[in-house]
Amino acid sequence: MAKNEKLVASITPMSEDFAQWYTDIVKKAELIEYTSVKGCMVIRPYGYAIWENMKKILDTRFKELGHENVCMPMFIPESLLNKEKEHVEGFAPEVAWVTHGGKEKLEERLCVRPTSETLFCEHYANVVHSYRDLPKLYNQWVSVVRWEKTTRPFLRSREFLWQEGHTIHETAEEAIAETEQMLNVYADFCRDALAMPVIKGKKTESDKFAGAVATYAIEALMHDGKALQAGTSHYFGDGFAKAFDITFTDKNNTVKIPHQTSWGVTTRLIGAIIMTHGDDNGLVLPPAVAPVQVVIVPVAQHKEGVLDKANELYATLKAAGIRVKLDDSENSPGWKYAEYEMKGVPLRIEIGPRDIEEGHCVAVERHSRNKTFIQLDNLVEGVKERLQAVHDGMYQKALDNQNLRTYSCTSIDEIKSMLEEKGDGFVKAMWCGDEACEDKVKELTGVGSRCIPFEQEHLDDKCVCCGKPAQCMVVWGKAY
Amino acid sequence: MAKNEKLVASITPMSEDFAQWYTDIVKKAELIEYTSVKGCMVIRPYGYAIWENMKKILDTRFKELGHENVCMPMFIPESLLNKEKEHVEGFAPEVAWVTHGGKEKLEERLCVRPTSETLFCEHYANVVHSYRDLPKLYNQWVSVVRWEKTTRPFLRSREFLWQEGHTIHETAEEAIAETEQMLNVYADFCRDALAMPVIKGKKTESDKFAGAVATYAIEALMHDGKALQAGTSHYFGDGFAKAFDITFTDKNNTVKIPHQTSWGVTTRLIGAIIMTHGDDNGLVLPPAVAPVQVVIVPVAQHKEGVLDKANELYATLKAAGIRVKLDDSENSPGWKYAEYEMKGVPLRIEIGPRDIEEGHCVAVERHSRNKTFIQLDNLVEGVKERLQAVHDGMYQKALDNQNLRTYSCTSIDEIKSMLEEKGDGFVKAMWCGDEACEDKVKELTGVGSRCIPFEQEHLDDKCVCCGKPAQCMVVWGKAY
Repeated sequence: MAKNEKLVASITPMSEDFAQWYTDIVKKAELIEYTSVKGCMVIRPYGYAIWENMKKILDTRFKELGHENVCMPMFIPESLLNKEKEHVEGFAPEVAWVTHGGKEKLEERLCVRPTSETLFCEHYANVVHSYRDLPKLYNQWVSVVRWEKTTRPFLRSREFLWQEGHTIHETAEEAIAETEQMLNVYADFCRDALAMPVIKGKKTESDKFAGAVATYAIEALMHDGKALQAGTSHYFGDGFAKAFDITFTDKNNTVKIPHQTSWGVTTRLIGAIIMTHGDDNGLVLPPAVAPVQVVIVPVAQHKEGVLDKANELYATLKAAGIRVKLDDSENSPGWKYAEYEMKGVPLRIEIGPRDIEEGHCVAVERHSRNKTFIQLDNLVEGVKERLQAVHDGMYQKALDNQNLRTYSCTSIDEIKSMLEEKGDGFVKAMWCGDEACEDKVKELTGVGSRCIPFEQEHLDDKCVCCGKPAQCMVVWGKAY
Repeated sequence: MAKNEKLVASITPMSEDFAQWYTDIVKKAELIEYTSVKGCMVIRPYGYAIWENMKKILDTRFKELGHENVCMPMFIPESLLNKEKEHVEGFAPEVAWVTHGGKEKLEERLCVRPTSETLFCEHYANVVHSYRDLPKLYNQWVSVVRWEKTTRPFLRSREFLWQEGHTIHETAEEAIAETEQMLNVYADFCRDALAMPVIKGKKTESDKFAGAVATYAIEALMHDGKALQAGTSHYFGDGFAKAFDITFTDKNNTVKIPHQTSWGVTTRLIGAIIMTHGDDNGLVLPPAVAPVQVVIVPVAQHKEGVLDKANELYATLKAAGIRVKLDDSENSPGWKYAEYEMKGVPLRIEIGPRDIEEGHCVAVERHSRNKTFIQLDNLVEGVKERLQAVHDGMYQKALDNQNLRTYSCTSIDEIKSMLEEKGDGFVKAMWCGDEACEDKVKELTGVGSRCIPFEQEHLDDKCVCCGKPAQCMVVWGKAY
């Protein structure tokens, strides 16, 4: 057990140093490794497999909704980036510039895409001519680069993986419906695949994507009470289309300007999983995206029949499509328990001589350490039930935490005292719609506007800051 | 039929201008679109779906063989690229350099990866310590950049998509076995998924990958008689490990140097499909990777029951897992035939009132225009049989073409006259192993060494060039 203790002891407790706890997990669960390229990381097999599982679920859903995958260049000529004024102002300060090809200086610098609106627009201008060409519902799975000053694995890195959907439609109504639909796809994915409750809402003007008419976002609450923007969906109106001269002729042969959207989620979601579900023993993975859903640990494996039975369970679960691993190495069961807890495997099956005799195995849930028996003659069903219970339990636990740390406030003083007393969290408070008040709330309390949630509550008649009539309820928080 | 004729007439015939024929297909089959970034392209949904299908088949196979996917940074610091001497000499002249992040000049330039050996090596140096850490069988699906002077869609572009496998092993034997295994995986994939016969062999010293001990390749023959390198697998020995200081302790606690490989295929394979199978009516896609395997075209679709029946066939085939499309648009059947021929759909199903009466449909094979009837009560089986027949027929046709254009020669004069008389192709001829002869054959005849095939033939005792004793048979050709 010496090894076991060493492994567990090597994570900094969350309560002691949250940032270090996070860093310990990404390293010790073997999700990433640092590189000599500052702000860029290696996503290791275990980390990448989580992303592959996410990608598969989302990609299937996107395609069911009629989207098609494409691949745009990774470079954007400076003149192309400059075409939409707000967009270039938002992104130019943080792009990586390619200036040389081989030994030759380029005539025009190219940036490595920070996002690909401009490339999609150039393409749409080439291929959209008639209403028959619309809508185009495109998506791509690529990496993008933003030259951040301070970086943290998954949460903010200079290169990150994402999908970016870009669609173009005949009417504003269609484009707005697409924007909302994709936000719902993300929220459903967070709930159903990541066991992560999110708040859906609209960003305030000051927090919109560069070039968007409206930005919608899902916001999740992390263990430390900070908010994490987990996905965004933007409605562009016809601004980009005008800047890039995209037009089409409608059924009456009239030249019209189309309306656009874009939407994306990133590898940041892996960071969100860590900080929503992780604990002081390591990672806790939702079954839907866990690279290994079930680990089988034989107990007293030298005894006759134990390894045979363990192999039999493995084969049965594998045949049923469950991502299962059997660890029959020489390490002690205790050491194995600690290792797979660190790696966040949702369900551990223990099987020893006595279990075999009694016709069951022991199932231990990672998130709750809840133990149950599963009858061997009902193994597949039993394991599936447990995995569902794990998912449901994880979601409820995260939701309870979110509720516990959501404070409805009607004054600046109340915001301050709630945060001081109960720690960081979501603050619900009314707002007049004035950017000056938004800034002042942040200045006085430390929490900024996260979103104007779709699910509004009437907490008060007046703005929490200036006392003038309130326009809406805002969710405020400290942001990652 | 006016539209139809226009569509067909718009491809340049292969015999008139092969390069233009190729360009016409990539554009008119909607595989790619050009961009304002010179040498980079948009891979459009239809082109990208081919790549997705390839990727799925290969990725599954890689994983069956124990490989894991990872993701390395897209940037390589100049000092890291410089660590392996031959490697940097091979790649530095053709990389894109990032010199600025936002407004700041970087302390050290970063190149956009042209290939990732150096990044994998840096990572292996961090994570490989003991024999227990070996082998590592890693792969990544990414894009890479090489600053080519002249570019052509899929065949040679500044950015292209690929997979790059990178493995590290305890012994040279294991690494060599991996190198050979992956070459076989590629050759099997070309035969079974792309219906493309290839020659497996070893590259000569002058044609090796920069930094490799040995490079193996598969070579395919295109319609114009030129050779296309369709995949490569490299054995590195311990050269990279030494340059990057990667060591491990073996079972006896002795410090050892591991051995490495890398292997890759790229979106170039889409170009290979076009030039192996395409014809003057457009693209011809192998069923295994075709985005649409079967297109259903209703005949006299305004007549009662035709569209209902067509929809029924569609639903049946879709439920059976076949990638099927029903075109019930207002275009004429003739126009539709031409369109799906252009797009290379392997099998066309025609269904009209008379077919319905007789209880069958007509199946037309894209590659041969061969027509058969499929009984409607045996639809799924009948279609599957036809798709297999299409695959087999395409492979045989390509193989026949390759055989017809492979010339065994024993003198420089014979090489010249065969190429002149029969056109470009593969030339089999003996070689002494001397690089001077390799260069001279190319200078005198225009064909360079493609590979030393594993399947050797004894054509002569002496080198085709100098007359000294021959070491091996080489396959020569003009290369893409």
